[in-house]
Amino acid sequence: MIAAPGWQPMYARRADHMKASEIRELLKLLERPGITSFAGGIPDPELFPAAAAAQAYRDALATQASVSVALQYSVSEGYGPLRHWIADHMATHGVQASADNILITSGSQQALDFLGKLLLTPGDTVLVTTPSYLGALQAFSAYEPRYDTICPEQSNRTPASYADGAGKETPGALVKFAYVVPDFANPTGETLSQVARNRLLDLVSELDVPVVEDSAHSALRFEGNDVPSLQALDVGRCGSIDRARVIYLGTFSKTVAPGLRIGWICASPAIIGRLVLIKQASDLNVSVINQMVMHKLIEKGGHADLIVQARAHYRPKRDAMLQSLSNEVPSGVTWTKPEGGLFVWVTLPEAVSGYWLLSRAIEEAKVAFVPGRAFFHDGSGANTMRLSYSLPKPAMIEAGISRIATLLR
Amino acid sequence: MIAAPGWQPMYARRADHMKASEIRELLKLLERPGITSFAGGIPDPELFPAAAAAQAYRDALATQASVSVALQYSVSEGYGPLRHWIADHMATHGVQASADNILITSGSQQALDFLGKLLLTPGDTVLVTTPSYLGALQAFSAYEPRYDTICPEQSNRTPASYADGAGKETPGALVKFAYVVPDFANPTGETLSQVARNRLLDLVSELDVPVVEDSAHSALRFEGNDVPSLQALDVGRCGSIDRARVIYLGTFSKTVAPGLRIGWICASPAIIGRLVLIKQASDLNVSVINQMVMHKLIEKGGHADLIVQARAHYRPKRDAMLQSLSNEVPSGVTWTKPEGGLFVWVTLPEAVSGYWLLSRAIEEAKVAFVPGRAFFHDGSGANTMRLSYSLPKPAMIEAGISRIATLLR
Repeated sequence: MIAAPGWQPMYARRADHMKASEIRELLKLLERPGITSFAGGIPDPELFPAAAAAQAYRDALATQASVSVALQYSVSEGYGPLRHWIADHMATHGVQASADNILITSGSQQALDFLGKLLLTPGDTVLVTTPSYLGALQAFSAYEPRYDTICPEQSNRTPASYADGAGKETPGALVKFAYVVPDFANPTGETLSQVARNRLLDLVSELDVPVVEDSAHSALRFEGNDVPSLQALDVGRCGSIDRARVIYLGTFSKTVAPGLRIGWICASPAIIGRLVLIKQASDLNVSVINQMVMHKLIEKGGHADLIVQARAHYRPKRDAMLQSLSNEVPSGVTWTKPEGGLFVWVTLPEAVSGYWLLSRAIEEAKVAFVPGRAFFHDGSGANTMRLSYSLPKPAMIEAGISRIATLLR
Repeated sequence: MIAAPGWQPMYARRADHMKASEIRELLKLLERPGITSFAGGIPDPELFPAAAAAQAYRDALATQASVSVALQYSVSEGYGPLRHWIADHMATHGVQASADNILITSGSQQALDFLGKLLLTPGDTVLVTTPSYLGALQAFSAYEPRYDTICPEQSNRTPASYADGAGKETPGALVKFAYVVPDFANPTGETLSQVARNRLLDLVSELDVPVVEDSAHSALRFEGNDVPSLQALDVGRCGSIDRARVIYLGTFSKTVAPGLRIGWICASPAIIGRLVLIKQASDLNVSVINQMVMHKLIEKGGHADLIVQARAHYRPKRDAMLQSLSNEVPSGVTWTKPEGGLFVWVTLPEAVSGYWLLSRAIEEAKVAFVPGRAFFHDGSGANTMRLSYSLPKPAMIEAGISRIATLLR
C-alpha cells in the first residue's frame, strides 16, 4: 500500500488565501425544488438572445474562410472588430478610446484576476469599499494583498493615512490600487454620486495609484440620470485615455449573456500592453467564435436593444421587491433603494445574523439569499444580506419577501 | 498638462518575469504574402469539423431549457456530461477516473497557469526538460520560480542534488514539481521511452513532488506503438488516481479545434478541489455553450474519427519534411524523427544562430520557423530551430525546406 502524496506542503503560500465562494456553495442549495432564490444575482435567461445567437454561430461557420478564424487560435488582444466596437462604445460614454486601449477578457472576473496579477506583490494594499464585490476579493486574494477601506461618499481619512497603513505590516509594501463598483454596486445596489467620484479621483491622484472601475451593472439603469464613469471624469481631467489612471472593466454578461464569457478592459496602452502578456501566458485568447458571435449580437444597435429589454424586464422586479420590503418588513430593518442593477442590500437589527436567518429562510420560508458577511474584507457585516430580484417573477418576489418578513417579526 | 501616471513602480515584482512570446511576435511576420510558415504549430483549419459544430451550436440553442444552460454562468468544475466523457476517455487510456478527477480549463495553457498558481511560491524550483514548451515557461514564470533541468532519457544527477539546488538561492524554497511533454514534445517532436518514464516517476517519487504531464499532442501518433502515459504508469504503481502524483493535462485543441478553448486536468480529487477554487477566482467557468458543443463533437465516436482524420492528414506532411531534410540539408545539421505530433527539431552547426538563419530565411527563402533558444530556460540552444509541418501542403513543405537548405550550404 502506497501512501497518497501529502499535497499540503506542495501548495504555494498563496493557497492559504483561497477559499470557496460561499455564494457558489449556496447555489447548490438552490437546486432544491420549491425554493425562491434571491441569491445568485445571475441574469434571467429569458433575456438571452438565443435566436440571434444561433444565427450568428451559423454565420461564423458558414464559409471555410470564416471557420479558419472562428475555430483557430488568435491574438491575445482579442478579435479586432469586437475591440473596435467596444472602443466606439466607450467613446459614446465619454472616453475617446481606440482598439489599442481594449483587451478582451474571459468575463470581467478574468480582468480582476489579471489586475491582481499585474499589480500586487504580497503585502501590498488594495483599497476597497466595505462591503465589496466578493469575486473581486477572491481574485485579488490569490496575490496575497492587505485590504484597507475607502469610503468615497464620506471619509475623514487623509491620503497619507492610507500610504502609512500600507507600509506598517510589510516594509516597502505600497497602496497599489483602489477598486470600486460605482454603479448599482454588487452587493449594495448603490451608486456613487459625481461628488464622491471626484473625491475618489482626488484620493488616487494624491496617492498616485490607479483605480479599477468595475462597471458590470452600469447599463441597467431604471430611473434617474447616468453619472459619468470614473474613467470619463478622469479623462476629462487629464485630457486623454493614454494618461488616465482609471482602469475600466466592462462585461456583456449582464446585458447579453454570461455564457459566452466576454468582458473587456479599457485602459492606457501601457497597461493594456502588460495585460496582453498576462493573457498570453494565462490562456492565450478568448474563444474566437464567441467573440465573433458577440460582435454580431451587439453591432447595428443590437446592444442598445438588449439593454432596453433588460431594463424593462428587471424594473418591475425591483419595484416588487422594494414595495414588498416596505409593506412587510418590521421596523429596525433597513435597505437600499437601487436605481438599477440586480441587488437590494438589507441591514438587519444588530443582533440578527444573516447566516442564522438564511438557515431558517431555506427551511421555513423556502427562500434563499446571500448573507452579507462574505462581502466584507474585515469580517464585519454579520447582520447584513444581499437580495437579488433578477430571477423570480414579481409575484414570486412579493411572496418570498413576505415569507422572510414573517421570520423577522 | 498632467503627466501620465508612472506605471512602472505600480507593477508587481512578478511583472519583471513576463515577456512577450517570441513565437507570438513572429506570427505577425507570417501575414506577409508568399511566406511558407513552419512557425506556429497551430492545427490545420482544413480539419476543423465546421458542419458538425454548426449543428451542435444549433442544437444547444434549440430549446429554452437548453439556452438557459448554454448561455448562463455555470459551475467552475465544468459541464457534467463533458467531464464524464473525459473520465471515460481517461479510463480507455489506463487511468480509472471519475468526473471528480476532471476540471475543464480554457485550453491546457490555462491548466499550466493554474498549476503555477497553486504550487509555486517565489524561488521554488520547477524541473523542466531543456528545451521545454515555451508556453509552460511563460505560464510558470509569472509565479517567479527557479528552473532546473531534468533529463529523463539519461542523467547521472541524484534526487538529492535537485533538492539541494532548490534551497541554495532562496532559503526554504523547494522543488515543487516536474513538467514534461512525454509524447511528440513541443518543441522537439520526441517521445519519452517507457524506461525514461519510469525513471522520471522514480525521481519525483524520491523527491515526493508531483509531475505535470502535458499530453497536448499524444493523440497524433502516425506510427509505432503508444507508450503508456506517465499517469497510467503512476496509477499502476500506486493503485489509484486518488493517490497518484501525476497531474495530467489534456486538450481538444489539436484534435478538434483550438477556438473553443477547451482542455482538462485529470488528477487526484485533492488537487482538483484546489484548482476549482482557482478557476472560480480566475474566470468562473469555461463558456458552457462551447463545452456543450465540444461534447457533441466528440461523443459517439466523434473524437476517434477526428483523430483518424488528423493522423492521415499530418503524416504525409511529416514524411515530406523528413524526406526533404534528408535530401537537401548539408551534413553538420541534425534533426529529430518524430513518430507523431507537429514538430521537427533541428540542430544547426554550433556557430550558426537560429535567429540569424530566420532573418535570412524570411528575406531570401520566404520561409518562417521558430529559432529554438526561446525554449531553453537557461538561454542556451542558440543553434537550434523548431519546424512545424502542420499548415503547408507537402509540396510547399518540400520547396520550403529546399530553400532553407540553400542558405545552409
